Amino acid sequence: MIIDTEILTTVPTIFILLNWFGIVVFAISGALAASRKEMDIIGFIIFANITAIGGGTVRDMMLGLTPVFWVGDYHYIIVATIAAIVVFFTAHISQSRFTLLLWADAIGISTFCVLGAQISIDAGISPVSAILMAVITSSFGGLIRDVLAGENSILLRQEIYLTAIFIGSAFYIGFIELSIDKNIAAIVGFLACLLIRGLALKYSWYFPGYKSRAGRDY
Amino acid sequence: MIIDTEILTTVPTIFILLNWFGIVVFAISGALAASRKEMDIIGFIIFANITAIGGGTVRDMMLGLTPVFWVGDYHYIIVATIAAIVVFFTAHISQSRFTLLLWADAIGISTFCVLGAQISIDAGISPVSAILMAVITSSFGGLIRDVLAGENSILLRQEIYLTAIFIGSAFYIGFIELSIDKNIAAIVGFLACLLIRGLALKYSWYFPGYKSRAGRDY
Amino acid sequence: MIIDTEILTTVPTIFILLNWFGIVVFAISGALAASRKEMDIIGFIIFANITAIGGGTVRDMMLGLTPVFWVGDYHYIIVATIAAIVVFFTAHISQSRFTLLLWADAIGISTFCVLGAQISIDAGISPVSAILMAVITSSFGGLIRDVLAGENSILLRQEIYLTAIFIGSAFYIGFIELSIDKNIAAIVGFLACLLIRGLALKYSWYFPGYKSRAGRDY
Repeated sequence: MIIDTEILTTVPTIFILLNWFGIVVFAISGALAASRKEMDIIGFIIFANITAIGGGTVRDMMLGLTPVFWVGDYHYIIVATIAAIVVFFTAHISQSRFTLLLWADAIGISTFCVLGAQISIDAGISPVSAILMAVITSSFGGLIRDVLAGENSILLRQEIYLTAIFIGSAFYIGFIELSIDKNIAAIVGFLACLLIRGLALKYSWYFPGYKSRAGRDY
Repeated sequence: MIIDTEILTTVPTIFILLNWFGIVVFAISGALAASRKEMDIIGFIIFANITAIGGGTVRDMMLGLTPVFWVGDYHYIIVATIAAIVVFFTAHISQSRFTLLLWADAIGISTFCVLGAQISIDAGISPVSAILMAVITSSFGGLIRDVLAGENSILLRQEIYLTAIFIGSAFYIGFIELSIDKNIAAIVGFLACLLIRGLALKYSWYFPGYKSRAGRDY
Repeated sequence: MIIDTEILTTVPTIFILLNWFGIVVFAISGALAASRKEMDIIGFIIFANITAIGGGTVRDMMLGLTPVFWVGDYHYIIVATIAAIVVFFTAHISQSRFTLLLWADAIGISTFCVLGAQISIDAGISPVSAILMAVITSSFGGLIRDVLAGENSILLRQEIYLTAIFIGSAFYIGFIELSIDKNIAAIVGFLACLLIRGLALKYSWYFPGYKSRAGRDY
């Protein structure tokens, strides 16, 4: 598997673990979206997989890293499917599962903003493009989930979400460009994203949104 | 044409016919979605094409089988376009066209769940991945149609739809893995999907959906 | 950069300028969509980029021209990002910005219907496929913008939009097939699209939409 090997050689081992944690977290968020739509267990499985592997799939297609990563390594599908099945039978237990998920999701995007940036750099693309690619990697799985589920996407919720991913990726890419040690760059990028997203969650922060003053019939 | 040749050599001739039947059926379903939105004839043509070739296009992009299949064989576009034009001028005739479509669609997904699985195996991917790929091939054309038309996607209608595709693909892949004759595998996979979807349609079957008991503010 | 070089060698210089004008125009339309959703500045930037480069990205993925065009030439992202930032601070100034945008957008699609067709031909695909590809190139950025913003897509607004793109592309491809000079073909295709879209805008033209007479429970 191309991707896995690259990850193994280019980012700290902790990120291998975080990669799988991120996959599980996004799979759970997809399954929870399925639970809100009262879908059957196959629906849970499909939504969990789409959410968990959607961002990386779009990234691989845009970079030409085909077949995309999960085609050659079926563990992604197995892991996401198990997560979906567990959610199907346990989601009703916790009343606070949403808060838990938000924090797990924050760790997930913090992981993927670094992993996505690293994979993009490995593919030989420019730093500016790598930042956009990292944002896409981290957010598109959730976007596809929201669009297919007919929900307002995270993009529209005025939360500091894309911004946290953007800053985390920018820190990582910036440190790499400055030839700073890759491990340090990864940890700083990860923490920058997690800190911003975490503070935003804890204190309900948001950036000033644009206030429309003109005609709205567009 | 890569795909066609592979299909010719690896699946029974009947599936070549069913392939085109599936294209026509999905084109018609796209055109009917356009009719509900009262679009003009170009809208019919675009929606018919997106629905008919969308699933296979996503599959080819994920597998790296580019240019995607319809780029090298314009007959797909011609056939879908003719179907769209026919629907534009005749859709008002039948009051029961929806029932007819549901059954034709059932045959379409039964075909594509086998074809999609076979093309995935030909591309050298693992059995587990091939099943997911087959589900995507069969369902994504309709999903894109529903999202662009602003409709609730089939995913959200709690019908036994993805499940039928899933089981049909799993039968086909399973039989192939067991080295059972490809013709038999194709027919069993096809019939399994058609039977499940058909019974679900006839008796309004559905799997037990998840019943949410916790907070819904996610 | 593959794409840029090809454009330089195969279409008139004026289209290089129009290409960037089109990128700016679509970036602005994405930023305006963000303004309606009262997003923060990062949201403006992401929406502007998705709209400006979305259509070409889908085209490149389908043709296998990967990494997609903006990965190797970060100027696209820079330009779209600057446009987004300018819109964020100035969008409230103009009350008539929507009318302005519609006309700029008309020039944008007129450009991209020719550029998309030319890039498709350069990739060696058939004329019929090239027309569909050009329609996708010109319209998918806006479609993704509308879907992510939760708006009715341009497809559903019964305007002469896809039709104008379709005819402009068909003129260009037709002239090329007839071995007419590429510059003339480009100008005719461009003007055909602009004329049709412009007249439709000015006189609120629309083609007769399909009037449903049958059951609507599909």
